[in-house]
Amino acid sequence: MCQLLGMNCNTPTDIVFSFEGFHRRGGLTDHHADGWGIAFFEGCGCRLFIDDRSSVDSPLARLVRDYPLKSTNIIAHIRKATQGEVKLANAHPFMRELWGRYWIFAHNGDLKDYQPAPGQYYRPVGCTDSERAFCAILEALRQRWDAPPSEAELFDALAALAADIAAHGVFNFMLSNGAFLAAHCSTNLHYILRQSPFNKAHLVDDDVTVDFAQVTTPNDRVAVIATQPLTDNETWTPLSPGEFVLFKDGEPARRQGKQP
Amino acid sequence: MCQLLGMNCNTPTDIVFSFEGFHRRGGLTDHHADGWGIAFFEGCGCRLFIDDRSSVDSPLARLVRDYPLKSTNIIAHIRKATQGEVKLANAHPFMRELWGRYWIFAHNGDLKDYQPAPGQYYRPVGCTDSERAFCAILEALRQRWDAPPSEAELFDALAALAADIAAHGVFNFMLSNGAFLAAHCSTNLHYILRQSPFNKAHLVDDDVTVDFAQVTTPNDRVAVIATQPLTDNETWTPLSPGEFVLFKDGEPARRQGKQP
Repeated sequence: MCQLLGMNCNTPTDIVFSFEGFHRRGGLTDHHADGWGIAFFEGCGCRLFIDDRSSVDSPLARLVRDYPLKSTNIIAHIRKATQGEVKLANAHPFMRELWGRYWIFAHNGDLKDYQPAPGQYYRPVGCTDSERAFCAILEALRQRWDAPPSEAELFDALAALAADIAAHGVFNFMLSNGAFLAAHCSTNLHYILRQSPFNKAHLVDDDVTVDFAQVTTPNDRVAVIATQPLTDNETWTPLSPGEFVLFKDGEPARRQGKQP
Repeated sequence: MCQLLGMNCNTPTDIVFSFEGFHRRGGLTDHHADGWGIAFFEGCGCRLFIDDRSSVDSPLARLVRDYPLKSTNIIAHIRKATQGEVKLANAHPFMRELWGRYWIFAHNGDLKDYQPAPGQYYRPVGCTDSERAFCAILEALRQRWDAPPSEAELFDALAALAADIAAHGVFNFMLSNGAFLAAHCSTNLHYILRQSPFNKAHLVDDDVTVDFAQVTTPNDRVAVIATQPLTDNETWTPLSPGEFVLFKDGEPARRQGKQP
């Protein structure tokens, strides 16, 4: 299975520390070596880096580790292919435009017998269940609304779509349009909120510690969401199966489904 | 004005040599320092790198120079902002999906009083005339065909759309879907075809020479298209104002408009 990493903040923040541990799961501390990718929103613009090499060997991953891009919404993915061969067109995250904004999606899981009809507005380029699900979600939203609905309406629609698709199998995913980051848990997803007073954090996958008090301001608020906790000296909150959370400005703003 | 660089080949080829000279025009040998970007197709997958920094200062550009990504269709752009502020959402190339393929577009020029109606299928995210033109082109194609037409029909439709939009001002552009690279000349665009027997080439913008005979096979065929010639010891062919050429497998496959 793949691994997911997301970050949602109230002020542009770099993901260098979390990515340092996360990218090691792509071929070094875990077996997810079939490609990787990461997307950074800057305002409504988005940088998308994808690679069909393992994140440990990738010159692109080295760039991401060395170049502290600051962003309020980041989604990263390390791939262990379940459906669809190892090729660039199958690397997550995927990007599309809806209502004049870019949307980014990454998925961890496996959807069985999931073949939605070809969309009018959105069609997959690669051959993964994940991209089919992303296109189906955007298609449903676009068919229903010609312009963005309220955040509450959008959240309810996304929660219903996520539940429908999750009936086909394991559907942990993250979705962002640069304004929020939504996360759906099917089996495995954890998050942590970091805010003042900031403390030190130590990576699970590497002997690296950062003192966030040194690199933040008192008003910063950051939510980090990951398949498995990335640090071993902080308390990560697991999401429950079926839980869907919309993170905004570094904290959960809307949630639906059982809480643990 | 901006600068464009494109490459279309019959076998995956890296653009390191041409990019070496081209990227220096982004702030060093010329004044195009308001961002840059480059897209590489690999099959139907596409890597898109965009930056709102000048290409001379950009760590991303250093990566592209050091990491010889091989591709059959590449489009690069160095931006000198005319419309739309300097921000990531305004950096070329732009990417959208049409008929289950990614399409990439970059523009050099300035379109006056060009405000096409918001599309049903494609809407701009940033605020450049260029992205509006790209969305208008895809919108017209998608409105007309639900699935890809023949290459001949597509070429004729694109040529007509290019001519219509060019009535608004300067509209040099490159467009690729990974299968071909189409180039429209409004004022400035040159190309060179390289094939066996390969020779040495020397950059205009830097004292660098490459001997293509050492890095190619006899069957390789490469078309390089650029705003201004990149080498000073080869003969580049200028495109005429209004000329529209579709490059495929490293050579012009279809063309329309006056030839010089």
